[in-house]
Amino acid sequence: MKAQDFKGQTIAFAGSGGLDSCTITRWLADQGVNVVCFTADLGQPDEEDVSAIRDRMLQAGAKDFVLLPTREAIADIGVQIIQAQACYEGRYWNTTGIARCVLTKAMIEAMQERGLTILSHGATGRGNDQVRFQLITNMLAPEFQIYAPWRDETFLARFPGRSEMIDFCQEHGLTVSATKEKPYSTDANLLGLTHESGMLEALTTPAHFVKPIMGCYPSEAPDETPKFTVRFEQGRPIAINGQSVDNLAALTQANAIGGQYGIGIGTHLVENRFVGIKSRGVYESPGVELLGTCYAFLLQLVLDRRAREFYDQLSLLIAKQIYQGYWFDVASQMALGAIHQTAELATGTITVALYKGNISFVSAEDVPHSIYSEENASMEGVGEYNHSDSEGLLRVYGVSARALATSGQIKL
Amino acid sequence: MKAQDFKGQTIAFAGSGGLDSCTITRWLADQGVNVVCFTADLGQPDEEDVSAIRDRMLQAGAKDFVLLPTREAIADIGVQIIQAQACYEGRYWNTTGIARCVLTKAMIEAMQERGLTILSHGATGRGNDQVRFQLITNMLAPEFQIYAPWRDETFLARFPGRSEMIDFCQEHGLTVSATKEKPYSTDANLLGLTHESGMLEALTTPAHFVKPIMGCYPSEAPDETPKFTVRFEQGRPIAINGQSVDNLAALTQANAIGGQYGIGIGTHLVENRFVGIKSRGVYESPGVELLGTCYAFLLQLVLDRRAREFYDQLSLLIAKQIYQGYWFDVASQMALGAIHQTAELATGTITVALYKGNISFVSAEDVPHSIYSEENASMEGVGEYNHSDSEGLLRVYGVSARALATSGQIKL
Amino acid sequence: MKAQDFKGQTIAFAGSGGLDSCTITRWLADQGVNVVCFTADLGQPDEEDVSAIRDRMLQAGAKDFVLLPTREAIADIGVQIIQAQACYEGRYWNTTGIARCVLTKAMIEAMQERGLTILSHGATGRGNDQVRFQLITNMLAPEFQIYAPWRDETFLARFPGRSEMIDFCQEHGLTVSATKEKPYSTDANLLGLTHESGMLEALTTPAHFVKPIMGCYPSEAPDETPKFTVRFEQGRPIAINGQSVDNLAALTQANAIGGQYGIGIGTHLVENRFVGIKSRGVYESPGVELLGTCYAFLLQLVLDRRAREFYDQLSLLIAKQIYQGYWFDVASQMALGAIHQTAELATGTITVALYKGNISFVSAEDVPHSIYSEENASMEGVGEYNHSDSEGLLRVYGVSARALATSGQIKL
Amino acid sequence: MKAQDFKGQTIAFAGSGGLDSCTITRWLADQGVNVVCFTADLGQPDEEDVSAIRDRMLQAGAKDFVLLPTREAIADIGVQIIQAQACYEGRYWNTTGIARCVLTKAMIEAMQERGLTILSHGATGRGNDQVRFQLITNMLAPEFQIYAPWRDETFLARFPGRSEMIDFCQEHGLTVSATKEKPYSTDANLLGLTHESGMLEALTTPAHFVKPIMGCYPSEAPDETPKFTVRFEQGRPIAINGQSVDNLAALTQANAIGGQYGIGIGTHLVENRFVGIKSRGVYESPGVELLGTCYAFLLQLVLDRRAREFYDQLSLLIAKQIYQGYWFDVASQMALGAIHQTAELATGTITVALYKGNISFVSAEDVPHSIYSEENASMEGVGEYNHSDSEGLLRVYGVSARALATSGQIKL
Repeated sequence: MKAQDFKGQTIAFAGSGGLDSCTITRWLADQGVNVVCFTADLGQPDEEDVSAIRDRMLQAGAKDFVLLPTREAIADIGVQIIQAQACYEGRYWNTTGIARCVLTKAMIEAMQERGLTILSHGATGRGNDQVRFQLITNMLAPEFQIYAPWRDETFLARFPGRSEMIDFCQEHGLTVSATKEKPYSTDANLLGLTHESGMLEALTTPAHFVKPIMGCYPSEAPDETPKFTVRFEQGRPIAINGQSVDNLAALTQANAIGGQYGIGIGTHLVENRFVGIKSRGVYESPGVELLGTCYAFLLQLVLDRRAREFYDQLSLLIAKQIYQGYWFDVASQMALGAIHQTAELATGTITVALYKGNISFVSAEDVPHSIYSEENASMEGVGEYNHSDSEGLLRVYGVSARALATSGQIKL
Repeated sequence: MKAQDFKGQTIAFAGSGGLDSCTITRWLADQGVNVVCFTADLGQPDEEDVSAIRDRMLQAGAKDFVLLPTREAIADIGVQIIQAQACYEGRYWNTTGIARCVLTKAMIEAMQERGLTILSHGATGRGNDQVRFQLITNMLAPEFQIYAPWRDETFLARFPGRSEMIDFCQEHGLTVSATKEKPYSTDANLLGLTHESGMLEALTTPAHFVKPIMGCYPSEAPDETPKFTVRFEQGRPIAINGQSVDNLAALTQANAIGGQYGIGIGTHLVENRFVGIKSRGVYESPGVELLGTCYAFLLQLVLDRRAREFYDQLSLLIAKQIYQGYWFDVASQMALGAIHQTAELATGTITVALYKGNISFVSAEDVPHSIYSEENASMEGVGEYNHSDSEGLLRVYGVSARALATSGQIKL
Repeated sequence: MKAQDFKGQTIAFAGSGGLDSCTITRWLADQGVNVVCFTADLGQPDEEDVSAIRDRMLQAGAKDFVLLPTREAIADIGVQIIQAQACYEGRYWNTTGIARCVLTKAMIEAMQERGLTILSHGATGRGNDQVRFQLITNMLAPEFQIYAPWRDETFLARFPGRSEMIDFCQEHGLTVSATKEKPYSTDANLLGLTHESGMLEALTTPAHFVKPIMGCYPSEAPDETPKFTVRFEQGRPIAINGQSVDNLAALTQANAIGGQYGIGIGTHLVENRFVGIKSRGVYESPGVELLGTCYAFLLQLVLDRRAREFYDQLSLLIAKQIYQGYWFDVASQMALGAIHQTAELATGTITVALYKGNISFVSAEDVPHSIYSEENASMEGVGEYNHSDSEGLLRVYGVSARALATSGQIKL
Repeated sequence: MKAQDFKGQTIAFAGSGGLDSCTITRWLADQGVNVVCFTADLGQPDEEDVSAIRDRMLQAGAKDFVLLPTREAIADIGVQIIQAQACYEGRYWNTTGIARCVLTKAMIEAMQERGLTILSHGATGRGNDQVRFQLITNMLAPEFQIYAPWRDETFLARFPGRSEMIDFCQEHGLTVSATKEKPYSTDANLLGLTHESGMLEALTTPAHFVKPIMGCYPSEAPDETPKFTVRFEQGRPIAINGQSVDNLAALTQANAIGGQYGIGIGTHLVENRFVGIKSRGVYESPGVELLGTCYAFLLQLVLDRRAREFYDQLSLLIAKQIYQGYWFDVASQMALGAIHQTAELATGTITVALYKGNISFVSAEDVPHSIYSEENASMEGVGEYNHSDSEGLLRVYGVSARALATSGQIKL
């Protein structure tokens, strides 16, 4: 698709007021396309005042500007991700993937109110975000068209690189803070930051090359060991250090506290993108990491062996689903239907100690669905467990173990 | 089974020279059972001189003492566990489970040389170790008998608790260092330590109640950030900080360095035992944690999306197999057959920085099977990837995404 | 536990009026134990009149007889099993496993109404049923005691084999139809029959040694090819051949029709029991097989690739859970929470043709959530799918495929 | 890519002598492209004499014709698929997917001998085969170019449908047997046939609309019940009905016998293609179905519970890998590394009875690695299994089952 296909029509553009957004908006307006800019308030920790974004997008030629209030929405999904322990390839909390779900869904709803049906975004042609924008839109509004300038040959020809965009903005009198020498790019929301590209593409650039925004590195954290207590009820954090919180407040406070002590700052991952290629990211997500670890400690008390084994599969599946833009499909609904059963059991108070990037278990209290029993766990002769019962158990399993041996199935 | 069933026979007892070993050996000797004591040198970091163990066991009444040299064997399995990233329930490197495999296998071989066929051990009737001893023996020597005093009613009646054992040893003039007030028990080998029982059974006892043996807590570590470099070839660590190592030296050095900087010290897990009950452990495994994290960074460059997805299943499976005593069965052979394909690809040099319990990525170099490409990863228009190709990809996947929508399968 | 432990107490015994039930009841009564017999109406196709069972159990010494009306309950679970396509080890529809869930749950409820707390059953000490009885009771009524004569040494000593039981019944004037030469044993309910033991234990006994009860073998079926049409709505069969049905009627009719044409008669499986040993069964389940196959045809239209891949895991998991007696645990709740999402989509009318054991697809109609599109499936240039879009898709995936090659990861 | 890009160059075209092949070859020659035609002998049961294909392709303008002898190769992979029980979405033995692997690999090798580097094929732009051709080529010869006429806009413009191709061939004097009214298309090789498209696209066309080629429908099969015996050694069929066979002979004979009795003829599946859309196929694969079922009976004796559970995952994975064209990647190597461990154990003689589409178990003999024991399976008091041992087993598992109950985790 090309910009000229939309001449005289109105498109909804997901913009953040940065270099790309200003360039695309101005350039589209120059092609005779009406641009309405949509910006989501996702609780970005690095974000300037929203009115400045509005001013800049209107200055760039947008016909209108719509702010989407999505802080609660992203906090709610953040809690679901904690409930699922859905970390992509073992390290990434999917913070950008979640934000795309929240933004796209809210934007589609706002577009439907305004009768708009052409959704545009500034995601490039190699990343995950273009996939997420497109699949989510296809699923939630299958009749919508999608226009991606970064896959439009005419746009690509006009702007082969970053410097042409900066020049273009300067020529049009648009103030953008970007410089031609940008060491890496950052995507930000309440749940965390993802840093990639630029200098980070070299695998000889240390993860700590990134300058943290949501907190500090462990080596910069204060030399103290505060306790952090969170109360979960049915899978939701309802109090932090004794104060009631909703999901948004829980994540906001956990971000502040975790970030201060270097928790979840500077995670390195070379990951497999949807399109099959590898890319490297450095991540910050202090609040999700902190609450997520506490939730993991709680689950340890609640999930029995069978539930746990299945749960571990679900974590992997859900992380993949979000990462690849399939949060709204049936497989995700199925997996969340299963996770929901575990979240209902996740009630309890977990206390940890924080120290320079480390989270250490202090206590678990008031866990009504705990199946941990001090008496049964004890190696001493207490509780309802009779030591000699194991003789029968082992004799039973011994039959099959010996059958493997005598049938020649054991190789050494 | 009861001790008297073995009167006049010779049994092989796996003993470590501690309170339980001395008590069991003396008590069995008193029943007219000949006891040969087998102790494995598993590179225990907390261990006294082995000649002292020999003396104590002979003093306690053992007819003979056999030292099993198994440091290399446990190091080799330790490396396989790193290759599989086989961490039980996300946190425990299975150090005791591995040691049981190594010990039991070596002991069976030594017994076969001596014509012994009755294997005995001091594992209690509620834990995992009794299961491992028995299943491994059943698989490797199905004709062997197993005698477990802790499942012998006559032994249990004589020694209802720890203090009766201490009294018994004192009466027999056996010197044991155990005190009646032991805050928790520890199992140790080259790969790590597991602490459990006693005070640790209360979930209000912090993980840091444990006094570390293999290193220090992050807060005690020096305030410096040394680099650590490991070279893997085909899955094996062959050099650390530029010096050649074999598996044993790699783990020994990684233990020393990791422990010094608080890596992998004090991990807390309430886990599901084989027998179904929950138990709580606090773990130390600085070397496996350090090398394992470096290996994870290497794998990030090598495994594509499909290999990775399958690999994650294998990690879970292998961790379960070891934990439950099934390291030698067919399912384990199958899983290791798959893991082997990935280990062959794991060649490269990883450098990390250590700081008070944190491991931070510094660089990856000389990785011949890396599928990471700076050019392809770049969002810029370089490499063999054409941005506009994604248009086709997304149109293709869009057909199925929209089909979900138009068939009413998307719920919100 | 021994019978004498319950002297003077009242136990609830799950009996079916056969040789074992009469023997156990009479023998317990002789020991001074009060026995109340509970029999479930599970729609057994081979069952005599229930009043005859009552008479026989009272004659054998039961103090009371309780009939549990559970036809609807077992039909409802049968439909859930079809929704999950939960076939154990690929071949067994878990018919006995389901019956144990239904019976035990109903029996516990009836016991609680009567104030009884000791549950007894006639399952032997090597099979799966003893496990199911016990685990289900532990989960639904953890305070109940369980007494299993086949694990009572005094009972085993009195009745080392079948012939002693027959003699005992004859001595006590109890009429039992059993003969000393019984070629195999059969468990029956609405969902199907399981035949095992006796002559079937030899793997040189053909599956067709079994004389079918729910229908005939394919070679005995009529030489005709009738059509069979079933309408599912949200996963439930609501009409068969145009006539409305509830779950019970659906299974009853499908049993009759399927059985007549040799569907699902004589399935052979050497399976892994809970206790680890192998056992051989021959199965009949014409109705579940017939409805299950139609449901599979319907799911083919509804589940996309991702949902399907996850669904296949759930089928395996749920089959294992039922088989091992864990239908009521959290892992099962989780899996059913996921399956429920797919059942909601399973609306449509499937017609098949039946011929001597074969089920052949005829048509699928009125499937609102179908994502199959004749136009998109066509290789011709119709529908919303542009052939040349694939060029982009393949170029994108080609980047990663070539990366595997150039990094030396492809072995031949 | 367009044909004119290759003007004056030589491309290798995978052709079968049919309408598409003749049209593409003639049309490319007309554009000044040199075409060398490669045809694989895959043991197609429907194939005419290969010299006729050669004549027709040369007549159509091919510069040269190369016959690839791949019967043994496809038989060998066919046996691996049986060893993996790798049936896609439960019903399709991946016969076409396997053939694409064999053909593409052999063709690449032959091209490399001749210095050719441009591979072309006649697969359309919506199917799976284009994906397989491309991914396999990318992996085995990453430097090769691929040209697919069905994704070339100039070709698509010239030939919007089948009738234009027939007219074109007639104008050029090329004899093709195709008619404008073709009810469906068929792909054939030693392992089976896949029928799709045309009339089969309507879900009201019964599966039996297809006229079988490899045998007959059950209703046409003779009214007899012959026995069929196959001996497997280490996973390979080495004798059928007592006569030695290699893999090719085993499949050829099993095809003949299975086909005659209606085995594996007319399987219906609406499946998820790689590109995400659903398509419907009707399949014939009598030999793979027959040998595959016998192999399943053998595995039942050999795989213990843990191996079986993992094996079931591998079957699903391998079926997906082949179907999607990833047979040669690392994930496949991993899965085959695991399957290999099971194949080594698969030695034994299985006898079944065949009757009008049904395969019934008759016997299993000489299975050295069998873990089935008549004595242990028996419910009677024989074998090494003590009935009362189960009391201990159940008491142990009862502790965790009751813990679920008392912690409020059981919902009804």
